[in-house]
Amino acid sequence: MKITDKPNWQLYLDEASGLALDFGGLRQPLDLAAYAEKCEHALAAMQSLEAGAIANPDEGRMVGHYWLRRPEIAPTLQIAAEITETQQKISDFVQKIHTGAIVGCTGHPFTQVLVIGIGGSSLGPVFVSQALKSQQDKMRLYFIDNTDPDGMDSVFAAIGGHDALAQTLVIVISKSGGTIETQNALVETQAMFASEGLDFYANAVRITQRGSGFDTAPDAEKWLAAFPMWNWVGGRTSVLSAVGLLPLALQGVDTGALLAGAAVCDELGRAEPAANPSLLLALFWLSETRGEGGSLLAVLPYKDRLMLLAKYLQQLVMESLGKEFDLAGREVRQGLAVLGNKGSSDQHSYVQQLVAGPRNAFVVFIEALSDREGASPVVREASTSGDYLQAFLLGTNQALYDHGQSSVIITVPEVSAYYVGMLIALFERAVGFYADFVGVNAYHQPAVEFGKKAAGDIISLKNQAYQYLAARPGEAYDAAALAGLLGASERQLWHILRHLAANHAEISEQHGGFLYVSE
Amino acid sequence: MKITDKPNWQLYLDEASGLALDFGGLRQPLDLAAYAEKCEHALAAMQSLEAGAIANPDEGRMVGHYWLRRPEIAPTLQIAAEITETQQKISDFVQKIHTGAIVGCTGHPFTQVLVIGIGGSSLGPVFVSQALKSQQDKMRLYFIDNTDPDGMDSVFAAIGGHDALAQTLVIVISKSGGTIETQNALVETQAMFASEGLDFYANAVRITQRGSGFDTAPDAEKWLAAFPMWNWVGGRTSVLSAVGLLPLALQGVDTGALLAGAAVCDELGRAEPAANPSLLLALFWLSETRGEGGSLLAVLPYKDRLMLLAKYLQQLVMESLGKEFDLAGREVRQGLAVLGNKGSSDQHSYVQQLVAGPRNAFVVFIEALSDREGASPVVREASTSGDYLQAFLLGTNQALYDHGQSSVIITVPEVSAYYVGMLIALFERAVGFYADFVGVNAYHQPAVEFGKKAAGDIISLKNQAYQYLAARPGEAYDAAALAGLLGASERQLWHILRHLAANHAEISEQHGGFLYVSE
Repeated sequence: MKITDKPNWQLYLDEASGLALDFGGLRQPLDLAAYAEKCEHALAAMQSLEAGAIANPDEGRMVGHYWLRRPEIAPTLQIAAEITETQQKISDFVQKIHTGAIVGCTGHPFTQVLVIGIGGSSLGPVFVSQALKSQQDKMRLYFIDNTDPDGMDSVFAAIGGHDALAQTLVIVISKSGGTIETQNALVETQAMFASEGLDFYANAVRITQRGSGFDTAPDAEKWLAAFPMWNWVGGRTSVLSAVGLLPLALQGVDTGALLAGAAVCDELGRAEPAANPSLLLALFWLSETRGEGGSLLAVLPYKDRLMLLAKYLQQLVMESLGKEFDLAGREVRQGLAVLGNKGSSDQHSYVQQLVAGPRNAFVVFIEALSDREGASPVVREASTSGDYLQAFLLGTNQALYDHGQSSVIITVPEVSAYYVGMLIALFERAVGFYADFVGVNAYHQPAVEFGKKAAGDIISLKNQAYQYLAARPGEAYDAAALAGLLGASERQLWHILRHLAANHAEISEQHGGFLYVSE
Repeated sequence: MKITDKPNWQLYLDEASGLALDFGGLRQPLDLAAYAEKCEHALAAMQSLEAGAIANPDEGRMVGHYWLRRPEIAPTLQIAAEITETQQKISDFVQKIHTGAIVGCTGHPFTQVLVIGIGGSSLGPVFVSQALKSQQDKMRLYFIDNTDPDGMDSVFAAIGGHDALAQTLVIVISKSGGTIETQNALVETQAMFASEGLDFYANAVRITQRGSGFDTAPDAEKWLAAFPMWNWVGGRTSVLSAVGLLPLALQGVDTGALLAGAAVCDELGRAEPAANPSLLLALFWLSETRGEGGSLLAVLPYKDRLMLLAKYLQQLVMESLGKEFDLAGREVRQGLAVLGNKGSSDQHSYVQQLVAGPRNAFVVFIEALSDREGASPVVREASTSGDYLQAFLLGTNQALYDHGQSSVIITVPEVSAYYVGMLIALFERAVGFYADFVGVNAYHQPAVEFGKKAAGDIISLKNQAYQYLAARPGEAYDAAALAGLLGASERQLWHILRHLAANHAEISEQHGGFLYVSE
């Protein structure tokens, strides 16, 4: 259904699904006519992207996450077949895990899952897992998404000892195979299995791109199973590939409904502007940002289950739109910051600033109509807790409006796999459209490499410093002295030396400096 | 120790505690001389605040959270005595719970805790609980911080059935006693106890201000225990009052160390500018924002345990600084947005935008030197997972600098109660100083009321609509028609009617409208 044009109340409603976008909280109604040309361009670009164009020119890649929920539109029969076969393979594998046809290294059925991955290999699965968790879940998921030793210890402790570990299926996800955090967590997990005398590979599944270092490693044959990533799926849009489907299906999520909801929303996103929810959402953003970087988008789902949506969208939106250069190579410093947890909790936190603060902020509310399974007691004023939840949403929408701040309400009937799929697809396409409006490549992330590369230099410097001290046991050097000797940054060395002294018994801080204590 | 003035590397280090603030990642060194007057003003204002001035003029209140960790500086002996007595009372109560001297409603020892509170009555305790959780914890904490029925069901399910509930101590926190989300959760929790045939009050503790509705209610005598809030402690700075101390002590956190760390950092924050870590931090913010609203502060702790720090700081910073008017009544629309989860995970998310995106962003890194309990295995390149964690932090610090973005590194030796206390105090005081720099009241939150008030209107409208339909069973009205009849907003009614139809069996959506189905 097209957006309505009642006075002061623009509403998009898809009657079939119940998805609605209420633009009545905008200070100025969306002026579709003024954006007609931009919309036409964005729709044409999206059409060619879906048809298999090299929509990520810097990396020379197609962008195919929309094919995952409708393989028949993939540009080649081979790609379509790979998607379908992978989904079938996941389904078969999960069934065998659930029925105990495949068992763990000690012959016992798998009861829980550890997912090792970072960024796009974690944020989507974590978000959906949390959104759809239920008492009926088949398996519990644990996640390691970092190279923090203490964080890993905490997850290992939660997983449990020998017997529990033996019944833990480990899914290691790295598209490139070279993600250092993931590799480190893999090594530590292998060490944990070894220390319990357990065969890691009998419990381990990998998800990676064909031909990646991870796929062609000498141990490749030993893994229990492997599922593919494709170079035409970006990390931040990979939740409906094996990356998300495998762990979520193991948990017990209806991944068919997840895909179906996304497919339906994709289809809505191919309509003309006035009937296109993703395009309308992107136009809202554009009308707020005026096409410039520096704005703040608060995502406020009034539903505890959706608390990680904004964290998921931080990556989707900020990594896609936060760009130094546009497609023509001009420095533009684009970007749209995302924050948010959940309402009405956040009303007792930063909503003060959204209402009263700087004008560079705007809000997307998410409303889920169904309150809970079963009926609710009246808590006060003939109302339920859920009535209040909605009242706080609508009240904040009103308060923002009254104070000159715009917001949109996205409504879904319930938080189910189907509607979570819709929400994912809605935002994915909105980000694609918005990137086209402002002329940036939404599908690369060049700046992620800079920190990674600089980290490699830090590791080298750390090794140099360690070796220097180890060769001169008992001799103390402060950061300044060592920096002079190694021709390095005193500042970075100071951090490195403090960290070495805090974690290596053989490096000590004394005599006003750092030294290797000979044994 | 004073900030150093090495070329291009300003470092603040407190040798005694090991707390460091490294300003070497700033594009321009801090110019203390240029800010001398502002610093003098902010220090004087803080001094009078600590001495008991009405530092929150709009609400006519003193601001006393610093007294909580050093009662002897409180402006009256009575306040000092109340703080000390409350801490002692908490300590005694917790010991009795831990030893089983106080037992639950069925005579069994308490084994877990449910904390009901929202905003400042939740964010601090949740953050610290997560930061300091350990295998040695004495009790597990659960939190309800919203009026989401499904969210409550999920917590109740996690708590467990009859026997587990009987052993659950419930702490209900509301300073005013009138917080609707908290009251709703209280009613639902009472209903849960009743449905299991358990005596709620025998398991329930309240934390509220003397004389609040909550304190003077008819049931006030029935509660197991009560602890005070004071009108001179704001919600967002209440974590070191009973609000945080009680649940954290029950968990097993060393609350004495938490208070001691905060007290030490408070003392550092009373020093001259060059030796004052909170003031230096606030100056960093000021040099980045130039005193205007609209900037983005990313808080990036490289430690999984500290993942909720930024969420805690969202309230502390944004609710304090996000203000429409300054103290002189001028419209200023101040505010500093906060986001962040943890490194290096976030490097694979929005750090792309921090490095490459808009210039209105700056970063505070948190480094914790100690990697884990025990030694770490080498994972690659003669390095541990923790070496990489540090390398990613320093590498991103460098990448930001290279791309024109400033960042500070705050280092603590470890994540312990003492250093978490220091971090809390460091940021609390920095926010106070910054508010003085830009001339806003950091201690009120007037805009929080607007959404709450508008929510009350929504509840009234919902009740009107329901009654109208109930009086005319079988007659269908769409939102437009009902809005006309009730003289209300069609848009708000449309949301209300959809929500009623989704949750009340007696309200149905059909015949192109909403109707009451007579039984």
